[in-house]
Amino acid sequence: MARVLTPRAEDFPRWYQDLISKAEMADNGPVRGTMVIRPTGYAIWERMVSDLDARIKATGAENAYFPLFIPESYLKREAEHVEGFSPELAVVTHGGGKKLEEPVVVRPTSETVIGEFMAKWTQSYRDLPLLLNQWANVVRWEMRPRVFLRTSEFLWQEGHTAHADEQDARDYARRILHEVYEDFMVNVLAIPVTVGRKTNRERFAGATSTYTLEAQTGDGKALQMGTSHELGQNFAKAFDISFSAKEGGQQFAWTTSWGVSTRMVGGLIMVHGDDNGLRVPPKLAPIQAYVMVVKDGDGVAEATDRVLAELRAAGVRVQVNDRTDTPFGRRAVDAELKGYPIRIEIGPRDIAEGNVTIARRTDGSKTPVSVDGVTKAVLDALEADQKALYDQAVVARAAKTTDAATLDEAIEVAGSGFARIAWDKVGVDGEAKANQSAVSVRCLVREDGGVPLSQDEPGLIAYLARSY
Amino acid sequence: MARVLTPRAEDFPRWYQDLISKAEMADNGPVRGTMVIRPTGYAIWERMVSDLDARIKATGAENAYFPLFIPESYLKREAEHVEGFSPELAVVTHGGGKKLEEPVVVRPTSETVIGEFMAKWTQSYRDLPLLLNQWANVVRWEMRPRVFLRTSEFLWQEGHTAHADEQDARDYARRILHEVYEDFMVNVLAIPVTVGRKTNRERFAGATSTYTLEAQTGDGKALQMGTSHELGQNFAKAFDISFSAKEGGQQFAWTTSWGVSTRMVGGLIMVHGDDNGLRVPPKLAPIQAYVMVVKDGDGVAEATDRVLAELRAAGVRVQVNDRTDTPFGRRAVDAELKGYPIRIEIGPRDIAEGNVTIARRTDGSKTPVSVDGVTKAVLDALEADQKALYDQAVVARAAKTTDAATLDEAIEVAGSGFARIAWDKVGVDGEAKANQSAVSVRCLVREDGGVPLSQDEPGLIAYLARSY
Repeated sequence: MARVLTPRAEDFPRWYQDLISKAEMADNGPVRGTMVIRPTGYAIWERMVSDLDARIKATGAENAYFPLFIPESYLKREAEHVEGFSPELAVVTHGGGKKLEEPVVVRPTSETVIGEFMAKWTQSYRDLPLLLNQWANVVRWEMRPRVFLRTSEFLWQEGHTAHADEQDARDYARRILHEVYEDFMVNVLAIPVTVGRKTNRERFAGATSTYTLEAQTGDGKALQMGTSHELGQNFAKAFDISFSAKEGGQQFAWTTSWGVSTRMVGGLIMVHGDDNGLRVPPKLAPIQAYVMVVKDGDGVAEATDRVLAELRAAGVRVQVNDRTDTPFGRRAVDAELKGYPIRIEIGPRDIAEGNVTIARRTDGSKTPVSVDGVTKAVLDALEADQKALYDQAVVARAAKTTDAATLDEAIEVAGSGFARIAWDKVGVDGEAKANQSAVSVRCLVREDGGVPLSQDEPGLIAYLARSY
Repeated sequence: MARVLTPRAEDFPRWYQDLISKAEMADNGPVRGTMVIRPTGYAIWERMVSDLDARIKATGAENAYFPLFIPESYLKREAEHVEGFSPELAVVTHGGGKKLEEPVVVRPTSETVIGEFMAKWTQSYRDLPLLLNQWANVVRWEMRPRVFLRTSEFLWQEGHTAHADEQDARDYARRILHEVYEDFMVNVLAIPVTVGRKTNRERFAGATSTYTLEAQTGDGKALQMGTSHELGQNFAKAFDISFSAKEGGQQFAWTTSWGVSTRMVGGLIMVHGDDNGLRVPPKLAPIQAYVMVVKDGDGVAEATDRVLAELRAAGVRVQVNDRTDTPFGRRAVDAELKGYPIRIEIGPRDIAEGNVTIARRTDGSKTPVSVDGVTKAVLDALEADQKALYDQAVVARAAKTTDAATLDEAIEVAGSGFARIAWDKVGVDGEAKANQSAVSVRCLVREDGGVPLSQDEPGLIAYLARSY
């Protein structure tokens, strides 16, 4: 078979671009750094949204929608925040045919505008916690764009909450981190993530704690898949989010924010893709079983209808491809590229023996299965392949994670994988030095895997890597 | 009871603003003309999205996402289109701390950028029809903003399709009009809509046919709830959307576009709201049954749990309010404002007799019902009230629709309702004259209610009204 993609081992970034283009996931938009998400890619994003949305609502948060345009002055109220975002802002200077009196920025994130309204809605301790989430587009001007991973406009959810005390805010930020994000990434995306705390140098502009989930891509780099922040009282003070406390007196609230974005689609590709295309984990897949008519012939249409009906009845997400006017080989290559977990190939030769062929994307196996046994075989394969993809990613990550004894060794190792090193051998100065070699501290974790409350805790482990 | 809202009859626009604010539907955003959609309002929008999305997908369309930013030059390619939108554009001149070489506009609609990509993806007749939809925010700078109805930024879906011939495009635009939009508005929103054709003067910038669905608000004005356009080959020629035809040769495609927006939330309020607040039709309602603990006491918690469990099992969307630290009256007023179809009030006095009280928002009735009978009573009431709201809206519209014999009479009548008049008594000159009195031709329909193919068909009826 002619090679369809640049092999991963030959040129990973090129392979990634090839896959996105050939699998019809996305295109570059006409304005530099923007992207067009095509139906194949968008269906995956929709599945991510729907699963995460249910999890977020289960924590008690409600969805709302805040404006795209934010007065420039809002960003300036929190000092670190404006410093963090200023270089990335898109600014609207003209509206309705006139120059605006005050330019407005296109939201890079909505902390500030949501802070303004939280202040309005929070009067008493009875109004807390105030748990809000929004699904929206945001804009951060990108100098080195890469589709899905780093685009000037991207889609995301951003949660923003206000709490009566620090502990409640912390518990909530961590509940989102583990119950919503980590559980989703591990059990739905089948991506192992290293969950830890960002160093003070790496944390979000205006946060007191930033928690992160870091995936390892096929070329051994780190990809930040999501973050959850404690903002302390910084935004509450900047926007006057205060309330009359239960015990009397006026207090400032404690706020959090947390988000995941279309970047996860890029992560999915970079973790699970192979030289034939994407492999979508069954629990996520918009199309779990792709039923392909190989060629028309006796009994083919009947078998196809029966297989489709039985799979649908069993709750399997199916799609049929009966375009026999296109060569089967080309259609099969396309299905591999798009990563449908199971292909069910139905043709007259197999049907004459009462069989169809089940092709599994995860391991490339092809097995004849009797028409009677299709549904069970598909359900079993979907379950097994969800697990197989996760296990493979765990093995791959372990193979590219190395314990390092010194900072220099860690920087060296981080050239091609994760370096694991005692944080006290790195420290603030070592971190700056690593940055000069394009290596960053991805996160800090406790020895037992727990997430620390401060970078000053003793005995922490640092993960160093290059990153996307 | 103290009056909560300005009465509708006293000042309808003021009543509308009051309701939106007191029912916590939305707030004005900090940048003029923008809005903050609060959880109560957003939950209604989410239900609209989810119902419509399924209908749109059932027609074969797929979701995708195109960029927020469009090069200014794109809009200029279709002459009428640029003329139609120029006065409303928001323009980004600075990005990433620098002045941009070419300013970009924030999409007012995505015809142009989608046209550009359709051209890329359409090679052969096999690629058609190409049926795309996107859920997105768009920006049209508003001089006279009104929350939900007319905002500088709003949320919508915009469908864009390309077809091999005119008939296929027309059939699809009309399928969206009737099967997706009309059916949804009538059967879910419980809003009667007048479905017809826009005059050439009123049609979308760049379209050859614009079909519209017009609701009548409580004050007798027209509200355009959605539109579906045939764009002929205008955009196909401007963006070179061409394909090799089945019968050989290169041809231009025929395109359509169609959309509905957060404006529907405003329509819902203006059609179904009353002096106590919103009334949400049961099929749409995010919360269909609102279970209120009046006061704690013997058996109350048990009955509440049982009622909740049984309603959930029956598929009713429920929410409980057991905040007995807030006066019951205030909570009940809030529930009326937000328009939950059914309130189930559970207190010790009723429970002593084995009863709860079912309060129906549609007619204001309050009925004691035995705990055993709650689920059936709720299901019956939800069904009846869905119908009742629609029937009331039909009656209200009929009361404010008048046949007119002359243009002057029609303009007079349109001051407070719909005027129905033979289109040949209005004509192009009469339409211009009506516009001078702030009255417009909302749509043209055939005598049998059908939607005409041209404004030149004989025997058409015109609906004239003031509009939001």
